[in-house]
Amino acid sequence: MKKTAKGMLLAGLALSVVLSGSIVTAKDNNTKKPQSKNLIVLIGDGMGPAQVSAARLYAKTRMGKEHLNLDAYYVGQATTYADKGEDGGKIVSGAVTDSASAGTAFATGNKTYNAAISVSNEDVSKPYASVIEAAEMSGKSTGLVTTARITHATPAVYASHVRSRDNEAAIASQYLESGVDVLLGGGQQFFLSKDEKGKRSDKSIINDFTAKGYKHVTDAASLKALTSKNSKVIGLFNSSHIAYTPDRDAKTPSLAAMTGKALEVLSSNKNGFAIMIEGGRIDHASHANDFPSTIQETLDFDAAVKVAMDFAKKDGNTSIVITADHETGGLSLSRDNIYELNIDQWGKQKHSSESIANTLKEAGTIADIKKIVAANTGITDLSDEEAQQILDGDGSSYGREGGYNAVISKRLLVGWAGHGHSGVDVGVWAYGPISSKVKGQIDNTGIALASAEIIGVDLKKATAQLQSKHLYPKFKVSREGAVLYPVQALVQALGGKYKSDAAAVILSKGNRTVSINKSTLAVKVNGTAASYKADLDNGAYYLPLDAFSKLTGSALKWDALSERIILK
Amino acid sequence: MKKTAKGMLLAGLALSVVLSGSIVTAKDNNTKKPQSKNLIVLIGDGMGPAQVSAARLYAKTRMGKEHLNLDAYYVGQATTYADKGEDGGKIVSGAVTDSASAGTAFATGNKTYNAAISVSNEDVSKPYASVIEAAEMSGKSTGLVTTARITHATPAVYASHVRSRDNEAAIASQYLESGVDVLLGGGQQFFLSKDEKGKRSDKSIINDFTAKGYKHVTDAASLKALTSKNSKVIGLFNSSHIAYTPDRDAKTPSLAAMTGKALEVLSSNKNGFAIMIEGGRIDHASHANDFPSTIQETLDFDAAVKVAMDFAKKDGNTSIVITADHETGGLSLSRDNIYELNIDQWGKQKHSSESIANTLKEAGTIADIKKIVAANTGITDLSDEEAQQILDGDGSSYGREGGYNAVISKRLLVGWAGHGHSGVDVGVWAYGPISSKVKGQIDNTGIALASAEIIGVDLKKATAQLQSKHLYPKFKVSREGAVLYPVQALVQALGGKYKSDAAAVILSKGNRTVSINKSTLAVKVNGTAASYKADLDNGAYYLPLDAFSKLTGSALKWDALSERIILK
Repeated sequence: MKKTAKGMLLAGLALSVVLSGSIVTAKDNNTKKPQSKNLIVLIGDGMGPAQVSAARLYAKTRMGKEHLNLDAYYVGQATTYADKGEDGGKIVSGAVTDSASAGTAFATGNKTYNAAISVSNEDVSKPYASVIEAAEMSGKSTGLVTTARITHATPAVYASHVRSRDNEAAIASQYLESGVDVLLGGGQQFFLSKDEKGKRSDKSIINDFTAKGYKHVTDAASLKALTSKNSKVIGLFNSSHIAYTPDRDAKTPSLAAMTGKALEVLSSNKNGFAIMIEGGRIDHASHANDFPSTIQETLDFDAAVKVAMDFAKKDGNTSIVITADHETGGLSLSRDNIYELNIDQWGKQKHSSESIANTLKEAGTIADIKKIVAANTGITDLSDEEAQQILDGDGSSYGREGGYNAVISKRLLVGWAGHGHSGVDVGVWAYGPISSKVKGQIDNTGIALASAEIIGVDLKKATAQLQSKHLYPKFKVSREGAVLYPVQALVQALGGKYKSDAAAVILSKGNRTVSINKSTLAVKVNGTAASYKADLDNGAYYLPLDAFSKLTGSALKWDALSERIILK
Repeated sequence: MKKTAKGMLLAGLALSVVLSGSIVTAKDNNTKKPQSKNLIVLIGDGMGPAQVSAARLYAKTRMGKEHLNLDAYYVGQATTYADKGEDGGKIVSGAVTDSASAGTAFATGNKTYNAAISVSNEDVSKPYASVIEAAEMSGKSTGLVTTARITHATPAVYASHVRSRDNEAAIASQYLESGVDVLLGGGQQFFLSKDEKGKRSDKSIINDFTAKGYKHVTDAASLKALTSKNSKVIGLFNSSHIAYTPDRDAKTPSLAAMTGKALEVLSSNKNGFAIMIEGGRIDHASHANDFPSTIQETLDFDAAVKVAMDFAKKDGNTSIVITADHETGGLSLSRDNIYELNIDQWGKQKHSSESIANTLKEAGTIADIKKIVAANTGITDLSDEEAQQILDGDGSSYGREGGYNAVISKRLLVGWAGHGHSGVDVGVWAYGPISSKVKGQIDNTGIALASAEIIGVDLKKATAQLQSKHLYPKFKVSREGAVLYPVQALVQALGGKYKSDAAAVILSKGNRTVSINKSTLAVKVNGTAASYKADLDNGAYYLPLDAFSKLTGSALKWDALSERIILK
């Protein structure tokens, strides 16, 4: 929540609260009465059906727990497919989603292409507002919590907009404008300049957050010391992702600890809050095919579920919805035609495969490998063939770490189809009034719509507001360093007309025109020759922003960091 | 329903029906009022989460159907694990179930060991009654329908009891005693003697069915000709399993056709009915890793779901529950780190891999293989390496068929972890009053309990009745051909006492005793020397049935076909 908005709204709401005995949210176009004041969304990244079954089998067999905390709240499952679109230079069908498009779906209610952070699937993309942004606009407090980098796709879709999820520096900068009150996770590197061992080319932006009233914390102790008096917090607990559960030191908070503190801070707003909490590294462990860490990360997530449920039950005015963005790894709970799982061995790995990846790289001999494996897993009878398989690596970018996980997974009797995501439906769990709106077989977009409806915030209105400010075009940079935009797509996105005949392309909006001579590529703006020519690339024409500013009569600006056009 | 019982019950019920305006079931110990008259259980064998997601993706992309018929009825998911026990000579944890133990769970409400057909997990097993048997005892009509052999595990658990699912001849014979009114599926071989190209050592038993009033049909046309006047039907449409969907000829009915006819026949009983309908070959296609046939079988099952739903909606007094026994194959909807599925190719396979297995076996060259693959899939660019992989087979019992499916699955961008089952939770779908009882995260045993409760039949009473008749002991056959039983387990199952000291084993029941001299293995029955000695094997004593008859004072009998002791 932005501070100014918060002050205003609370003042305006004071009387309503007294008179009606219930909290009234800011007026918006959503005419249905909100059924919950607070919304908690929990996302298990990469937590497919097999990941959940595995964690439960482990909890039951090795921890004496009959059920996961999740289990009591199971209500349905969701399809996860993305839009058709470009992904890593290829056009893919979208049948297998990534975290960005899946997140855009359950945060904003819209399908888009893989890699898109809450923008539409167009050559000139439009931003889609998330339920967190809509909640923010309506005067609620908001938060994002994750064990991944806070700038990673799943948190990003809730409070930023970029064409490519890789632009994490832009995502960090957009958080500053977003008004999101609590940001807890990893990813400090995208808030620090290269001089300060970060990854930003421009400057460090931590001070910009503290200048806006954010308390900056960096370890478990300073997180713990926060109270409900801290209304704005940015907690960054690692340069990149937060360490895997089995690798954490005392300075590193668990997802449950971050969740508890975030709820304490956010719940001081009488107008309510909306928060997204992500178990971000279930996905990473599954990408690596590190099965023991996949289980530990799922249990770390499940512990955060308990904290959220305990809060909601006590609070009595909170809806919770829990899902995954997709399954990761094509995990199978059995392999090689054997009707058994080696559950006794599942808990014996001491640290993640990631934590021993460098040691594995440095190993010179089969004996070295056997020593490393014995130290990390207690497996002392590794065969020469198994050790050699680790030395050879698995042929993927995971190299020897991949080889290690292939050997260990075979021992654990679990299978993986690869290091990528898969297209199976994911579970949906819920508590409170939202439950009836997300039950059964749903599409992941239904989660955003139910989330907004249940707390009475307006995604359409919030989206219209965002779309009046920014467009996210594809663009190219000329040899001379000029930024050029695709003429047809951009003029149409700006509400103009595109006409093409044998001799020329004519753009028009009202009585303003821009023309391109197809033979010479000369450009005329409102009949006057421009100082630049058009660019022709693969059959499509490109022009610099000046042409579009002249055409629309507004001074369009280019935000080079976020790669977006500022409309006003 | 047995004819005599049916007549009696209908006569007795006539007045109640008129007076109360509703149907009253036979009185039993279940005190809750039944909420549905009819029960339909649909089982997709091997239909895990990925199988369902795959069928939906195919229906959406290739058939223009946004949803499966199933989708509207999704209510939860079920754990599938079995009891620890012997499986194929090894002790397994049960974390990965087979169809027999999973079926026993959702048919009777009890966990047992893999391979057990509705008997307990003991050295001397006791029978568990299924909801179909309880319905039968309460005067309802009953039916079993499957695309697998009707004697296969899933139908078997509903109306028979054996220690090992492989004893399909006994299962067929037990159906004759079961009273089940409609039996439709494959598996004619277990009803025919070896002389008649069947697999029975004793005799053909089709005539025994027709003598009891069953109409015997063997093709789609004679199935179609049945009317609601045919109260008992046995339809066997193939020697073994019914052909896969893509391999069927006009003589072979679909699961939907069998379902429609079974419901027509059974619904003529005013007292209601209970039926189990299985898509039995989703499992087989997934065992073989034949992905296109897995989809076609899932769609064949989904078409039967529609028939059942249409019936229930019209009828207004029917509960439907749908689930799977387990996932098969460890199917992944993506593989090899590629975020894509080759859905366009999923529907191009003409026939199942099973149907071309022999042709593949006969192939001599790479060119032969390429020709076979092109003819069945339209893939004309098979590489020499791929063809060689097929020639080499996949190292499993599937041989070249396995190699073919490995190559094709890679082309389709789907992965398999093996040819066995996996331990992931399975979906649960429901319609009618049963829905609220099977929603959320449940165990598969909950399906049996809800099924019985919803139609007001008593599993405990039915189980007690079965247990008063039969015991299913482990046994051994001596060199001389005598059948011997484990002394301690059997005497305890018969309610006697087992005492062992340095010199002797003493069995007692009331004032009767049997003793075994540990040095000589001589046996005394009520103080008198017996004509036989005890057998000592691996620390356990064995005796022939005569000793137990004398001990209990009842003339116990051995049913060699069903491998069970007849108590009375």
